[in-house]
Amino acid sequence: MQLRIPGPTPCPPEALQSMGKQMINHRGKEFGELAASVTEKLKKIYQTKEDVFVLTCAGTGGLEAAIVNTLSPGDKVLSTSNGVFGNRFVEIAEQYGANVKNLGFEWGKPVDLDILEQALKEDTEIKVVLATQNETSTGMTNDIKSISSVVKKFDKLFLVDSISGMGCIDLPTDEWNCDVVVSGSQKGFMIPPGLSMVSMNKRAWQAYEQAKMPRYYMDLGKAKSFLEKGQTPWTPAVSIFFALDTTLDMMLKEGLENIFARHARIAQTVRDGVKTLGLTLFSDERYLSNTVTAINADGKVDAPKLVKVLREEYDVVVAGGQKNLSGKIFRIGHLGWISDKDAELVLEALGKALPKAYK
Amino acid sequence: MQLRIPGPTPCPPEALQSMGKQMINHRGKEFGELAASVTEKLKKIYQTKEDVFVLTCAGTGGLEAAIVNTLSPGDKVLSTSNGVFGNRFVEIAEQYGANVKNLGFEWGKPVDLDILEQALKEDTEIKVVLATQNETSTGMTNDIKSISSVVKKFDKLFLVDSISGMGCIDLPTDEWNCDVVVSGSQKGFMIPPGLSMVSMNKRAWQAYEQAKMPRYYMDLGKAKSFLEKGQTPWTPAVSIFFALDTTLDMMLKEGLENIFARHARIAQTVRDGVKTLGLTLFSDERYLSNTVTAINADGKVDAPKLVKVLREEYDVVVAGGQKNLSGKIFRIGHLGWISDKDAELVLEALGKALPKAYK
Repeated sequence: MQLRIPGPTPCPPEALQSMGKQMINHRGKEFGELAASVTEKLKKIYQTKEDVFVLTCAGTGGLEAAIVNTLSPGDKVLSTSNGVFGNRFVEIAEQYGANVKNLGFEWGKPVDLDILEQALKEDTEIKVVLATQNETSTGMTNDIKSISSVVKKFDKLFLVDSISGMGCIDLPTDEWNCDVVVSGSQKGFMIPPGLSMVSMNKRAWQAYEQAKMPRYYMDLGKAKSFLEKGQTPWTPAVSIFFALDTTLDMMLKEGLENIFARHARIAQTVRDGVKTLGLTLFSDERYLSNTVTAINADGKVDAPKLVKVLREEYDVVVAGGQKNLSGKIFRIGHLGWISDKDAELVLEALGKALPKAYK
Repeated sequence: MQLRIPGPTPCPPEALQSMGKQMINHRGKEFGELAASVTEKLKKIYQTKEDVFVLTCAGTGGLEAAIVNTLSPGDKVLSTSNGVFGNRFVEIAEQYGANVKNLGFEWGKPVDLDILEQALKEDTEIKVVLATQNETSTGMTNDIKSISSVVKKFDKLFLVDSISGMGCIDLPTDEWNCDVVVSGSQKGFMIPPGLSMVSMNKRAWQAYEQAKMPRYYMDLGKAKSFLEKGQTPWTPAVSIFFALDTTLDMMLKEGLENIFARHARIAQTVRDGVKTLGLTLFSDERYLSNTVTAINADGKVDAPKLVKVLREEYDVVVAGGQKNLSGKIFRIGHLGWISDKDAELVLEALGKALPKAYK
């Protein structure tokens, strides 16, 4: 099977083998060494010298951690959302009582930096800006470097969802002044879902000290004090830690630059391939994601049928559209454990399935 | 290695093999069938006809789910805590703004039903009672059936932590009127940590409708609506679901009565064995847990040294005491994947290690 949704991605055999290891004491020496090893390597992937924690939860749990550890109810938050996952970040902040203004850019279109700057100028009480590096729902990558430069001109806290970006496309956490960055195990890290990673820099810790949203399971202060003794506050998903340690080694061996180049090259292959088949892409050509491609049904393709034919007849699993985009697009994931050959096989299957799904 | 802490427990080879399976689409048909299969079997273990959900988090996350899905800030909560995990349940409720009265029974001693009844009589505004079925920190089992009968005489909502009890000792959820029951994957279910199970009956859903504590990742209403279409709201820990499906089959094949009898028999072996070695038990003899035994250092044993000698010289991993009990007790876990032979090996090692750890 070619599992080509935007996560979970297939796992390399080495990762799956690690998952078969017997349990260990999560409060013992061996786990302490594992946690230290994983943390040190994660910092390299995050390109940060600050803290990175591994939480046992989905990426959405990590987004919740980013919010509840830095904000108080009533805090003014500015969102740059342009898709389903940007909106999810907003929903979490609102659920915990933040006062969110969502600039709500058009889906598939970039964040307008002038509008962002204007919004920050107009309301000096805004405390935090939310951004989504890689918007999985539309197949586009927001320009975090440029967004950050505007955010930091106004000295705001900057929370970044990089769940489907980290370890696939560049995000130098420290250099780009990202105060909190959230990622997930089942994307660039090539392992099963169940872990979310969250970085916290000094500025984020200052916010933590003031933050009054309720937090317990997601409390990063507890995560920090426990990590200092080689533990997590609550029993961690030990097996997925084993797998993470394994794939972090693989990632560091491949090298960040090479990983980014592989994702860029394969993404280009996919884009070229779908265009050759007469299809068009959903998002702005200047901001296309290197991890997921969203392709328009354009009124001529029955997208749900195409997804079904690919799965049932060609053993290729791709994703449909979410929310407003349901039925209007389909999406091919090309992140994590993927080779050029995999991309070619997917395109070949797509070429064969497409005629069967024309309206 | 004999991993005999009170969880994670060792996993049977069948469970570990399941963990090595390749990823699938968590929004596809195969996962839908897996979720339905797991849910149906879980209900048998829970002895309930009501809802049971599987969350991707540690047991502590499940406790948080129990609180935030049924309570509002300011709600009056009565706690029957007599240990570390009872206190954790209190901390979570307080963190989310509940007004908690903790009856705070002596550690190792049972819940005094007269005091509980008096407290419920005195304050009619109490909305919810919290209880811990199996207090892992002291090796005792609270009498949930009797506690529930008092709680239900006053028609209160009853939230039960059965993280280290479920699937090891009897808890007929419906028969004993437990409105919400929380368990964890790494205990009686014999699989790695990373999943927490939470049941919700109709009474709990009524509370959910009124509950105003913030919830997003742990929102059981979302879990319910997604489960109806064979999904989870957020990407689940797919590998641990595979393992859970496998061990649920093993558990149902062994049969609940046989599982309970095995735990009772092995627990008795452990108790008899440690007493034969001249040691005494921490908790009230009438309420000893069948999943974990807490043994007094009694001023004559250097408990941390004993734990170390057992680990380093005999490859047997047991646990020390937590919080106030640090250094005063050590604990042997005997739950989940454990045989009579395993218990004998642990006792044999303990007999050899003990003389090396006398003060």
